[in-house]
Amino acid sequence: MSSKTKVRVAIIGSTGYGGVELIRLLSSHPQAEVTSVISSSSAGAPIAEGFPHLYEIRTELLDDIDPLAIKAKADVVFTATPAGVAAKLAPQLLAAGLKVIDLSGDYRLTAADYEQWYRKQSPEQEYLDQAVFGLSEVYGDKVLGAELISNPGCYPTATLLGLVPAVKEGWIDPNSIIIDAKSGISGAGRGASLGTHYSELNENFKAYKVNQHQHTPEIEKVLTDAAGEQVTATFTTHLVPMTRGILSTMYAKVTGEHSTADFIQLYRNYYEGRRFVRIRPEGSYPATKEVWGSNYCDIGFHVDPRTGRVTIVSVIDNLVKGAAGQAIQNLNLMMGWDETLGLQFVPAYP
Amino acid sequence: MSSKTKVRVAIIGSTGYGGVELIRLLSSHPQAEVTSVISSSSAGAPIAEGFPHLYEIRTELLDDIDPLAIKAKADVVFTATPAGVAAKLAPQLLAAGLKVIDLSGDYRLTAADYEQWYRKQSPEQEYLDQAVFGLSEVYGDKVLGAELISNPGCYPTATLLGLVPAVKEGWIDPNSIIIDAKSGISGAGRGASLGTHYSELNENFKAYKVNQHQHTPEIEKVLTDAAGEQVTATFTTHLVPMTRGILSTMYAKVTGEHSTADFIQLYRNYYEGRRFVRIRPEGSYPATKEVWGSNYCDIGFHVDPRTGRVTIVSVIDNLVKGAAGQAIQNLNLMMGWDETLGLQFVPAYP
Amino acid sequence: MSSKTKVRVAIIGSTGYGGVELIRLLSSHPQAEVTSVISSSSAGAPIAEGFPHLYEIRTELLDDIDPLAIKAKADVVFTATPAGVAAKLAPQLLAAGLKVIDLSGDYRLTAADYEQWYRKQSPEQEYLDQAVFGLSEVYGDKVLGAELISNPGCYPTATLLGLVPAVKEGWIDPNSIIIDAKSGISGAGRGASLGTHYSELNENFKAYKVNQHQHTPEIEKVLTDAAGEQVTATFTTHLVPMTRGILSTMYAKVTGEHSTADFIQLYRNYYEGRRFVRIRPEGSYPATKEVWGSNYCDIGFHVDPRTGRVTIVSVIDNLVKGAAGQAIQNLNLMMGWDETLGLQFVPAYP
Amino acid sequence: MSSKTKVRVAIIGSTGYGGVELIRLLSSHPQAEVTSVISSSSAGAPIAEGFPHLYEIRTELLDDIDPLAIKAKADVVFTATPAGVAAKLAPQLLAAGLKVIDLSGDYRLTAADYEQWYRKQSPEQEYLDQAVFGLSEVYGDKVLGAELISNPGCYPTATLLGLVPAVKEGWIDPNSIIIDAKSGISGAGRGASLGTHYSELNENFKAYKVNQHQHTPEIEKVLTDAAGEQVTATFTTHLVPMTRGILSTMYAKVTGEHSTADFIQLYRNYYEGRRFVRIRPEGSYPATKEVWGSNYCDIGFHVDPRTGRVTIVSVIDNLVKGAAGQAIQNLNLMMGWDETLGLQFVPAYP
Repeated sequence: MSSKTKVRVAIIGSTGYGGVELIRLLSSHPQAEVTSVISSSSAGAPIAEGFPHLYEIRTELLDDIDPLAIKAKADVVFTATPAGVAAKLAPQLLAAGLKVIDLSGDYRLTAADYEQWYRKQSPEQEYLDQAVFGLSEVYGDKVLGAELISNPGCYPTATLLGLVPAVKEGWIDPNSIIIDAKSGISGAGRGASLGTHYSELNENFKAYKVNQHQHTPEIEKVLTDAAGEQVTATFTTHLVPMTRGILSTMYAKVTGEHSTADFIQLYRNYYEGRRFVRIRPEGSYPATKEVWGSNYCDIGFHVDPRTGRVTIVSVIDNLVKGAAGQAIQNLNLMMGWDETLGLQFVPAYP
Repeated sequence: MSSKTKVRVAIIGSTGYGGVELIRLLSSHPQAEVTSVISSSSAGAPIAEGFPHLYEIRTELLDDIDPLAIKAKADVVFTATPAGVAAKLAPQLLAAGLKVIDLSGDYRLTAADYEQWYRKQSPEQEYLDQAVFGLSEVYGDKVLGAELISNPGCYPTATLLGLVPAVKEGWIDPNSIIIDAKSGISGAGRGASLGTHYSELNENFKAYKVNQHQHTPEIEKVLTDAAGEQVTATFTTHLVPMTRGILSTMYAKVTGEHSTADFIQLYRNYYEGRRFVRIRPEGSYPATKEVWGSNYCDIGFHVDPRTGRVTIVSVIDNLVKGAAGQAIQNLNLMMGWDETLGLQFVPAYP
Repeated sequence: MSSKTKVRVAIIGSTGYGGVELIRLLSSHPQAEVTSVISSSSAGAPIAEGFPHLYEIRTELLDDIDPLAIKAKADVVFTATPAGVAAKLAPQLLAAGLKVIDLSGDYRLTAADYEQWYRKQSPEQEYLDQAVFGLSEVYGDKVLGAELISNPGCYPTATLLGLVPAVKEGWIDPNSIIIDAKSGISGAGRGASLGTHYSELNENFKAYKVNQHQHTPEIEKVLTDAAGEQVTATFTTHLVPMTRGILSTMYAKVTGEHSTADFIQLYRNYYEGRRFVRIRPEGSYPATKEVWGSNYCDIGFHVDPRTGRVTIVSVIDNLVKGAAGQAIQNLNLMMGWDETLGLQFVPAYP
Repeated sequence: MSSKTKVRVAIIGSTGYGGVELIRLLSSHPQAEVTSVISSSSAGAPIAEGFPHLYEIRTELLDDIDPLAIKAKADVVFTATPAGVAAKLAPQLLAAGLKVIDLSGDYRLTAADYEQWYRKQSPEQEYLDQAVFGLSEVYGDKVLGAELISNPGCYPTATLLGLVPAVKEGWIDPNSIIIDAKSGISGAGRGASLGTHYSELNENFKAYKVNQHQHTPEIEKVLTDAAGEQVTATFTTHLVPMTRGILSTMYAKVTGEHSTADFIQLYRNYYEGRRFVRIRPEGSYPATKEVWGSNYCDIGFHVDPRTGRVTIVSVIDNLVKGAAGQAIQNLNLMMGWDETLGLQFVPAYP
């Protein structure tokens, strides 16, 4: 396919980590190309000024946000913007005839949940209804042909891929689920604060937003859908002194007699043909570095006969499978392409 | 008190991290002094050769292990040795008239549990019976006058200080307990292996020994004692890319109506007068760096009315409160001194 | 000495890293005690609010800056303030009868150099004349009885202790000196910016302020003093992804025939009796971690007969010997006490 | 080009960091494919056993070293082996009709220098004569059609790309050169030792092999070639607590009147058309993270009129441009392909 016939992509929020990761990943995509990088705060400046790693690679200036101008340059827009921005922008972009893949949390919840957990005004109901939740390996079939895709959060992606098959199959008690999640610092974005200060985080480990993280309702919504009954989960998040990676350790009561090997087989069946989920063999638990820079989600299992509980360990790169990579996977699915197109990176190890 | 009347201390295993941390902490102890540093593998070499940070501070040579020679130089021996060594040494040291504080796991379990989880031959029953488990804030009253003290493991210290008051009071269902623990790498000791290799661990986070860590029976033994019934717990350990620090996140079903504030009050009462446990106010959760280099254990709480569970977050410096510091605290208690003697370090921040 | 007769110390800038490190180190000083912690930006708040590691250790509220009120509580003031603040404060504090030890750069340079390199208005000449430059092992004899002490910068401390003896003795060509210095991130202070953002600095190493660091004239001034002729040096600074520590690698042309062993002997003679400078034996080069948390400066040497140059490697903890520790050492010298009082910490390793 | 006509590549040393990086980079090469992964120590085991990040990506077993068997599967062999191994293997591989690209230091020096600095027996002179030193941007024209390529060391690559143009042009005094180089820990390989132990290296910075690094003669050989006279350089290496990246800071006396802008122009001219060297504009100095995971070498400059010296800062990813990436670049040049084939990765940031 020649460059002229590639799908043209614009990125709003090109000066955040999600935005530059989209640029990195799309640089080798065979059927899509980035034709506009957009930042309202830095419009007019060369993108490489704030990101010298792009020096001589991306030489264009940052565009401002203007739906009609974007439409002239692009077919699809990724919005990698702070909470509340896409809620206002997406209707305009859709009206201009663009397809939208939103990486923020704006379209993931019901209006009430959104306002409670994000403390922002919710998008209009019409657009909430229209948005497809792009957890690729679970809802991928709904993504084909969608106009507005809501890309899942990083914690929900790691967590839900580790829980959905067992909940759907009824192998675990959905109201016994405890999720202990850990994330690298890049999940907090590029904004400078005491909360992202090197000397405060290095050689340090801490819990934050205990029982109050805004990804809680997103996780519970999908678990409820999988269980066919209302699910409430315990969800605690922690910060790890590293840049990339999420590891989610999940605990639940096993219903019935299911061994570790049974769980492994159940998940292998569920994810059959989905290249980006790798189910580890018995005794092997994934580490975040083993998916670093790639779109993989690796999952390991252990059923403890002493307690009757299963421990599930799931890892992703929060900026790839947890953000930009899954967004591109959704672009592929939306366009009817192979979902792995342009995403077959080997993890960078070590 | 003049140097001549100080209690004389020998350290076996002076070339490990526990051993050098004992040297660091005891250097400013007003009533104890290190008179012999011992290492069977490096006997005859200056201790500063392997630890240049001690250059010009400790100039003596490492002694070999010889109970009678130790007795000539010391009153108390700390054994900071690999699993199985103290099981053989302690009887000889006791026979020579020395008091022993063992930092390894050799005297913490029943014979059967020890052989199952450590895969070593257990110490003789006589000495298992004699050993006092030195979790200072829980069993401190039994330490006074003891001859053989078994210093708790790092994970059990952080975990049990966070659980014992609630279990004792019956505020949580002891068989609902899930412990998700995270440790810095120094907990693995100074031995070189792929498991302690910088490039493998840096920018990485992983689970290990899922449901199979050898500290499990030590934790369950104390919880069983506190609950007055047999307790089984889910316990998973993780490695954090940092050198020092343990954070234990604990989850349990709350029995009855107890708020976050209630838990805080319960723990403040339980630990009243014990300086090294700091109960955080509501909304504050401790980070490992906030106790770095010190003997503190900080604990925070959150009861989630949505799930009926309490989340307890506890942190220590694994080499201090989780090893050398608590060992000195036990020396203080054993001798009838103030337990804070020589241990009133302010955490090194940042 | 009872608490009542201790020297009373106030710290202005208690919410920065220099300030809290003073609090940590002074907590065990036998003849000084902190009686007022001061912060204009957070006056009225408990100091432990911004620094939870001090919880239950320091329970007082932060005072505002008021020279007379300070005088009522203290005898000596440490100013650990941003550039330009002490230039205004010190005259008022001196006028109130307080002794001042300034940790900022305000009193280290000539008026002209200060304005060129710091881009602030210089302090009045009278006070520049009065200030004693407290590089303890070089100018310590001038510190006794001083009223205003200018504590050296972190880079100059590591660098000058490594260069002064050889320059004084004429063993190296002073105009051939190249200083390649590396610092942990805490040297940049606690302010939040992209320059202190974890994800930008972790797994990263970079040069900054090449040939333009404001510590250049401070270094050249002392080298000029030691050489007895005008010295110009090349000085480049780098950021290391760690919190604490400075390592300075220095290169110079050796004049005459001096071996590595000769250099070691020269420095041992020069620093005889000064406990905080440790000259390493031949073949041993210091690492920053080997002085972590302590007031030591360790120095190693290698003369290369192939090139006729000497390589000198010097390390300090930037927050201790490079700031708070040396400031206390200057307090000791100023008061006529043993310079090691309250500073005999063993480095925390690992 | 279909897979059948791709050049077939074997990798000896597939269980080291250089080997797995070759696998990662070659996975997207359009004209080469890895057909045999070889490890004498782990032959018969699945490669993903020791490197779980390759799980389901590379499913084959490791082959043993057997030149004829390799020849049946491959056209070109990369030897990413410890010092001394390729010296013995390369003649056999060449005799079997294979082309060899050696990533070790075995073929980089004269026989006498090799034996002095590597303390191993040198390869036979015939093969030393035959080997082409593959510093791509300097000697690339000699690589076309070569049978045996010696891939440069990581430190020499970063250093020489920063020095050769100025030395060739006579703009700096070649005998005034001082090289202060810093490397991430992955440069030490995957072998476990105290020297690669996490707790020893984290939050630590140190110099090593001062004036004695085995890359010294490799650097001096190329500088001598560029200068047209014998060059001796001062070269010191340091370890940075990070996994990947080398930064080399270089100092030299400028001959004549050349500004920073002049240097920039000189280097832009020299490297014109060579995509992997990026010359930064005035005031911009590269950081290692800005080339992480990519084949770029970025270089910045500053001429200090105060001292008459130039400071040159150069960065690479030691495992890519310093090893596997440049080796593939040499494969491309050897085969007459565009040197950027399969190497156009955007650096992974942050």
